[in-house]
Amino acid sequence: MLRTFCRVSPALKAAQRQPSLYLVARPASTVGKGKVLTTATMNPQIRNAEYAVRGALPIRAEALNKQLQTDKQLGFDRVVFCNIGNPQQLAQKPITYFRQVASLCDNPDLLKPENRETLLKLYPQDAIDRAELLLKHLGSVGAYSHSQGLPHIRENVAKFLERRDGFSANPEHIYLTQGASAGVQTVLQMLTENEKSGIMIPIPQYPLYSATLSLVNATPVPYYLKEEQNWGLSVEDLKKSVDGSRAKGVDVRALVIINPGNPTGQCLSEENMREIIDFCQKENVVLLADEVYQTNVYMPKERPFHSFKKVLRSMGDKYNDVELFSFHSTSKGMIGECGRRGGYLECVNIDEKVLEQLYKIASISLCPNVHGQIMTDLMTNPPVEGDASFENYNKEVNGIYESLRRRATKLSTCFNGLENVTCNDAEGAMYLFPRVRLPKKAIDAAKIANVSPDAFYALQLLEATGVCVIPGSGFGQEPYTWHFRSTFLPEEHLFDDFCSNIEKFHSGFMEKYRD
Amino acid sequence: MLRTFCRVSPALKAAQRQPSLYLVARPASTVGKGKVLTTATMNPQIRNAEYAVRGALPIRAEALNKQLQTDKQLGFDRVVFCNIGNPQQLAQKPITYFRQVASLCDNPDLLKPENRETLLKLYPQDAIDRAELLLKHLGSVGAYSHSQGLPHIRENVAKFLERRDGFSANPEHIYLTQGASAGVQTVLQMLTENEKSGIMIPIPQYPLYSATLSLVNATPVPYYLKEEQNWGLSVEDLKKSVDGSRAKGVDVRALVIINPGNPTGQCLSEENMREIIDFCQKENVVLLADEVYQTNVYMPKERPFHSFKKVLRSMGDKYNDVELFSFHSTSKGMIGECGRRGGYLECVNIDEKVLEQLYKIASISLCPNVHGQIMTDLMTNPPVEGDASFENYNKEVNGIYESLRRRATKLSTCFNGLENVTCNDAEGAMYLFPRVRLPKKAIDAAKIANVSPDAFYALQLLEATGVCVIPGSGFGQEPYTWHFRSTFLPEEHLFDDFCSNIEKFHSGFMEKYRD
Repeated sequence: MLRTFCRVSPALKAAQRQPSLYLVARPASTVGKGKVLTTATMNPQIRNAEYAVRGALPIRAEALNKQLQTDKQLGFDRVVFCNIGNPQQLAQKPITYFRQVASLCDNPDLLKPENRETLLKLYPQDAIDRAELLLKHLGSVGAYSHSQGLPHIRENVAKFLERRDGFSANPEHIYLTQGASAGVQTVLQMLTENEKSGIMIPIPQYPLYSATLSLVNATPVPYYLKEEQNWGLSVEDLKKSVDGSRAKGVDVRALVIINPGNPTGQCLSEENMREIIDFCQKENVVLLADEVYQTNVYMPKERPFHSFKKVLRSMGDKYNDVELFSFHSTSKGMIGECGRRGGYLECVNIDEKVLEQLYKIASISLCPNVHGQIMTDLMTNPPVEGDASFENYNKEVNGIYESLRRRATKLSTCFNGLENVTCNDAEGAMYLFPRVRLPKKAIDAAKIANVSPDAFYALQLLEATGVCVIPGSGFGQEPYTWHFRSTFLPEEHLFDDFCSNIEKFHSGFMEKYRD
Repeated sequence: MLRTFCRVSPALKAAQRQPSLYLVARPASTVGKGKVLTTATMNPQIRNAEYAVRGALPIRAEALNKQLQTDKQLGFDRVVFCNIGNPQQLAQKPITYFRQVASLCDNPDLLKPENRETLLKLYPQDAIDRAELLLKHLGSVGAYSHSQGLPHIRENVAKFLERRDGFSANPEHIYLTQGASAGVQTVLQMLTENEKSGIMIPIPQYPLYSATLSLVNATPVPYYLKEEQNWGLSVEDLKKSVDGSRAKGVDVRALVIINPGNPTGQCLSEENMREIIDFCQKENVVLLADEVYQTNVYMPKERPFHSFKKVLRSMGDKYNDVELFSFHSTSKGMIGECGRRGGYLECVNIDEKVLEQLYKIASISLCPNVHGQIMTDLMTNPPVEGDASFENYNKEVNGIYESLRRRATKLSTCFNGLENVTCNDAEGAMYLFPRVRLPKKAIDAAKIANVSPDAFYALQLLEATGVCVIPGSGFGQEPYTWHFRSTFLPEEHLFDDFCSNIEKFHSGFMEKYRD
């Protein structure tokens, strides 16, 4: 089962077909015998890692995109990258105030008194004030900061967490990171003692988790989300999963929850979260909460976001032994500043000596990039009522939010209208994960093409329409079910075309392969 | 020997004194028995890693700095962070043109036609042109770029390498990275098959190498630089080192050269480099060239910088089987943009399948931060004669360079004037690594204080003067010799005071512990 949830890249498959090479050590003194570093001699943990979000499909999409740029005629005008939550690549406008502050930090010469009059024609006063405050603490954006992140910014993150949750937060327990991914990778590495160390991950999952577990040589312990219950999570399933793995000798140490879900978009109820925390305590596993989509919540009344920190603290002192790492990022939400690689992790109930080790590991990479730190400051400490930029900030954020919500609905309606396709609504995040019931003829054709059936479908979709989605096998899915993940980020004015292209392709595909 | 070259942090020492804990696996199902994640259960490779540049001494320096900010009276007015090559922390002014371009990329609203007239009061035309060009290729600095780095920027890096070396460079063999450190870490991880995989590192070394080898569980294979020959490197020593390790069953796979040296500052001669390349071919080891200080060269006539790529290519086709990774960074040179985490690595004669794996590993972290990429573009593609900003750019770069050279000389003169201290000149980089012959009384006192003698000296220096240097044991040194590393980055107008504080402390220390 473990081996089935991550099948995508043909190149990797080919490499894996040479198992005999894996265990042959190089002779200690091979002189002049070809390359030292090959896929046979390299780190096997890297070789075995897979990451579909930027795997075979996107590589083909890039190639098609290049062909279009050289005026090659294809059946479509543009490649639409729905493989990755990269809003600004698809023309989402950045938050004006955030960019103003960032640019002033970059160019402090603008802040000199002799430029003030000119500057005020281009910048509002509050952006100038914020940049001056940040620079006072940073010195320069070109200097290494504290390895854990600038103390001033960590203090602001802590205040944000206190406002969000109603419980205290400690800046010393916050680590600024280069996007959430870097934080996740560090914590998973830290949690792994040897290859018996097991980490529970959802199926479907965001493949950062499976890839990182491969890199650090830990054992993934999968639990399934229930598609027919809106991708819900049952504690009985968690229990079955942990018991089964422990019976096999796996030292299960942690549970990863992605909330709102990626690729599945579900938002957990508070009650469900309490059960999960109780499970972590009973089973003595650390909780990793990937909460990067915390503001991408599209049914805020029925399915609001709750942070695991808040739910944990609200359960009282009795649960103060439950260890929690929570991750957040500047790449998602309405900000979408993916390229900056900003984010943070909060440590709750973590051993102080482990915190020192986290600092040490951060210090080896010197510091998270300062621009990402600045964006983390802005995300957690945006303009408030009364600030010059507040109105515009609010308008921009709401505009993006409402548009995302409309697009999510439009796309799920489109998918649900396709023959043999069902798709849950997006309660949150930036993705839909529809299920496609493929005809036997299509599955046979995929076999001949030597790709998984969902990759076969996705590849044909790409070649026919320029729409790049990721096959479900990149995220994991119940055996013999087939899905794909698509963002709903294409620009709104292109959305009807986008949907009708998919519809046209799909009916043609079904016609061609009908049993 | 392997175990002696990296001794610093008392906290880590303490952890290491509990070896019995290391091998005890947690029972598969420990319910409710205290913390899951402790220094006993965590990844032992992380636990064992050490990184002195931000270790015990700098942590103490931070604490003293905080005390000063709360108006506590100490024997000095300021903490001077000479532990790390962080020029802008010590008030080095960033290159104006670079910051102008970066800020315009951040705030593309400034580039709108209606702002042009105002903008030209604040920005030169060539900065505007460059930002527009970069944005044309980037789309937005807030979007994930290609995982390997923006193709346009990689093309510019390749052109820079061609101008520098006179040999062709392939943008597909260049990977933009988050500082050089991230590139080094990835390549070392890639090179490690199991704990028998050995990587040759200089002693003294920059502790990124020893720390990363600990993290990836590879075996460091040390070779010694010769202090009495201006930190020179002899191929006979390399040969002895590789033979000795291979005889013990270590699978020696790669050789790390830091040129110009860190912490030692030496620049290799072209002849020496040819011998090293020949050694790599004969011994079948991959060459890792850390060339981040390539423009920090202070005796350009006698000791110019040569890149390993250029020397390798100049040796002809016969050496086209020598595999080379070369690393560069935007953090050093006259740029000093450490906080941006920009850099690149170039792969020379590397297996194509391995390049695909490098791409995969980059894709798991999505992309290097875009601001670091922009700075890499600017570093490798600065203003040229005829550009509006050329004259000022040139003046700024030369000003920083000449000042660094003066300060290097001033500091080595200061060190050589101290009793029982000898110090080689800095041919390159940003550091001096003086040797201190400590009296026996001082060594005994260190023993009582339970720190290494060099850490004892450095700690007393810090407490007395606020000057933070790093003990030689953080970099490795010949047994029973004691050194420290200091940058020569304090501001030039503070330099005389800085030197006289060190002189005063040192003579007091010698007086106190004289045998």
